[in-house]
Amino acid sequence: MHLSVLMGSKRSEVLPFQAMEVLNAANRLEQAGEHVLHMEVGQPGAPVPDSVLKVAHEYLSSGRLGYTEAQGIPLLKKSIARYYKQTFGLEVPESRIFATTGSSAGFNLAFLAGFDRGDRIAITSPGYPAYRNIIEVLGLECVEIEVGPETRWSLTPEILEEVHKEKPLKGVLVASPANPTGTMMSPEALKALVEACEAMDLWFISDEIYHGLAYDMREETALRFTDKAIIVNSFSKYYCMTGWRIGWMVLPEVLVRPIERIAQSLYISPPELAQVTAAAAFDAVEDYEKIKAGYAANRQVLLDHLPQLGFDVLPVDGAFYVYAGVSKLTNDSMDFCQRMLAETHIAATPGVDFDLTRGHQFMRFSFAGKEADIKLAVERLESWLK
Amino acid sequence: MHLSVLMGSKRSEVLPFQAMEVLNAANRLEQAGEHVLHMEVGQPGAPVPDSVLKVAHEYLSSGRLGYTEAQGIPLLKKSIARYYKQTFGLEVPESRIFATTGSSAGFNLAFLAGFDRGDRIAITSPGYPAYRNIIEVLGLECVEIEVGPETRWSLTPEILEEVHKEKPLKGVLVASPANPTGTMMSPEALKALVEACEAMDLWFISDEIYHGLAYDMREETALRFTDKAIIVNSFSKYYCMTGWRIGWMVLPEVLVRPIERIAQSLYISPPELAQVTAAAAFDAVEDYEKIKAGYAANRQVLLDHLPQLGFDVLPVDGAFYVYAGVSKLTNDSMDFCQRMLAETHIAATPGVDFDLTRGHQFMRFSFAGKEADIKLAVERLESWLK
Repeated sequence: MHLSVLMGSKRSEVLPFQAMEVLNAANRLEQAGEHVLHMEVGQPGAPVPDSVLKVAHEYLSSGRLGYTEAQGIPLLKKSIARYYKQTFGLEVPESRIFATTGSSAGFNLAFLAGFDRGDRIAITSPGYPAYRNIIEVLGLECVEIEVGPETRWSLTPEILEEVHKEKPLKGVLVASPANPTGTMMSPEALKALVEACEAMDLWFISDEIYHGLAYDMREETALRFTDKAIIVNSFSKYYCMTGWRIGWMVLPEVLVRPIERIAQSLYISPPELAQVTAAAAFDAVEDYEKIKAGYAANRQVLLDHLPQLGFDVLPVDGAFYVYAGVSKLTNDSMDFCQRMLAETHIAATPGVDFDLTRGHQFMRFSFAGKEADIKLAVERLESWLK
Repeated sequence: MHLSVLMGSKRSEVLPFQAMEVLNAANRLEQAGEHVLHMEVGQPGAPVPDSVLKVAHEYLSSGRLGYTEAQGIPLLKKSIARYYKQTFGLEVPESRIFATTGSSAGFNLAFLAGFDRGDRIAITSPGYPAYRNIIEVLGLECVEIEVGPETRWSLTPEILEEVHKEKPLKGVLVASPANPTGTMMSPEALKALVEACEAMDLWFISDEIYHGLAYDMREETALRFTDKAIIVNSFSKYYCMTGWRIGWMVLPEVLVRPIERIAQSLYISPPELAQVTAAAAFDAVEDYEKIKAGYAANRQVLLDHLPQLGFDVLPVDGAFYVYAGVSKLTNDSMDFCQRMLAETHIAATPGVDFDLTRGHQFMRFSFAGKEADIKLAVERLESWLK
């Protein structure tokens, strides 16, 4: 008998998400009839507003859904350009706007078009684990830089220059608001970092997918300071469209054609119905602001109660996450998450997904769900931790 | 002033699709009020049947569209397993079924999970140009093997063994029915190739996205002969769902976890609405067979008339393409396509997209459109070529 030696590639040996183990356990509890409070997944609980849904139904009835231009339909690009004009007063040419199959495709395309094998990309730790995984799967080197409260959990020109001097980087990726920390860079801090990157000739990839979800600080786009940054954005978070898989990029002129060529082969085009629907989402700001007000209320409930229960909460500038230090409660956040789920039926994400070295001391609570659920979660935690 | 040296990566220098130039010119003609007959794009002209559309509308109204399991919702995996049972009498465990964001994602995941940098993958020339582009973008070596009428435009064990002996391959990708040729491998030829690959320890990637669209021959899945092949399939072609971006893979057990890990980061999950809708498509076979009957009629019109006009047509076993030799008419198919478009308003694809060395002697006509259009195209060609 012939024994096959075929197996998965070396590069497929990226880390799985620990959050998935929590999610699977949570699903098992639910199937057993328990009432689980979901605070583990970073997605809005609300559907798109009715006015947006109506556009989707109408388009669905109007005929075939087909391939579109790789960069997205003109209607969507036009509405994205208008968004920048209305939100930031910026003129962004439609030719630099590129619709993507979620921000996932945006990151993949940015890494493929801007970087060759072995190139080094700096990201923060803690950070979104898919950054690291995509970077490594594509044969690039992921340079994780630990950040903390001294810099509001963000990179600074000084930190970056030091890393770059030791061994040259090719680019840097930052998110503001950030996942999992929920912290933001001030416009001044963002400007300084963008300018430092230009001086060092580094690609600046700005993850702006949590834009629209800022509470205490003013959000700013990197486009304000440069036309050489790669902007990645999404309709998933503020616009409540996770399952539609639609996002966009704003590209430096020099990357438009390279990304178009790659996207034609790798994606053909983003889903057509999602493109049409997303274009309509910009017109429903009033509804979206109501949903955001719900997040703001949830945020306040958690900020009011978690510290009293022994959690060290980070400033929640934006997004819909509380990243909480749990070192007063445990020295193993994964174990803590599993016990919390089993004993209180609250699902949250252990910090190890976001920070391999310090994550055992943190966990992430998403507050994108219903206010009643968040209040109930606080009550359950209070009686559990007593 | 600081001059940036940043530019697109080396790997982004893949070839653009020539078909896009034809498409752009065709669109300009249409905008100028001309009636263009579209035979350049490989997508069905029909929308999904009403019964399938109804499922989409209902699900859309039922609540939020969100992230799903990376491998797809259980409902979809179950219906794919049932498809294999009903169509081929094969038992495929749901655990080996993986839903993807179109077959585009399937190919990307197969290459990433099965191959490391520098590994060699054999494909046929002519062939689908995105294979070559994705393979090269990912830093793998694409080994294009010229095939012709001697082997019905397909690879054989002998050809593959010879190439492998010269310099080892790591895998091979074949499509049956094939794009652009429309030719198919007989079940026996497929079996022989699968077995040769197993003996050489090569990944066998079977592109089965044109399954359901066979006219004269019986189609067969590689799953009949092995559980070690990587099967890539799609709802785009037979099921008329191009713009929904939904497909699937059947994986060898050893690749399930590697592909799941990569897909979690690279795609999160396929679009939820497309998953639910695709699951319903399997129940609308009667409607789809009517659409296919239209293709069969179109195919006959072209087979009856193109040879008289000087085109050398390949056997059109399946898919919805006629790949036609044009050496009696021109020695430059790109120029021929452009003139044909300008003078007859028929858009088709020059062979150079599919075959860099011999493509100037071929062009591809898609017959997935309306029968009236195909007949009109033949009339226009007749008067143009006189």
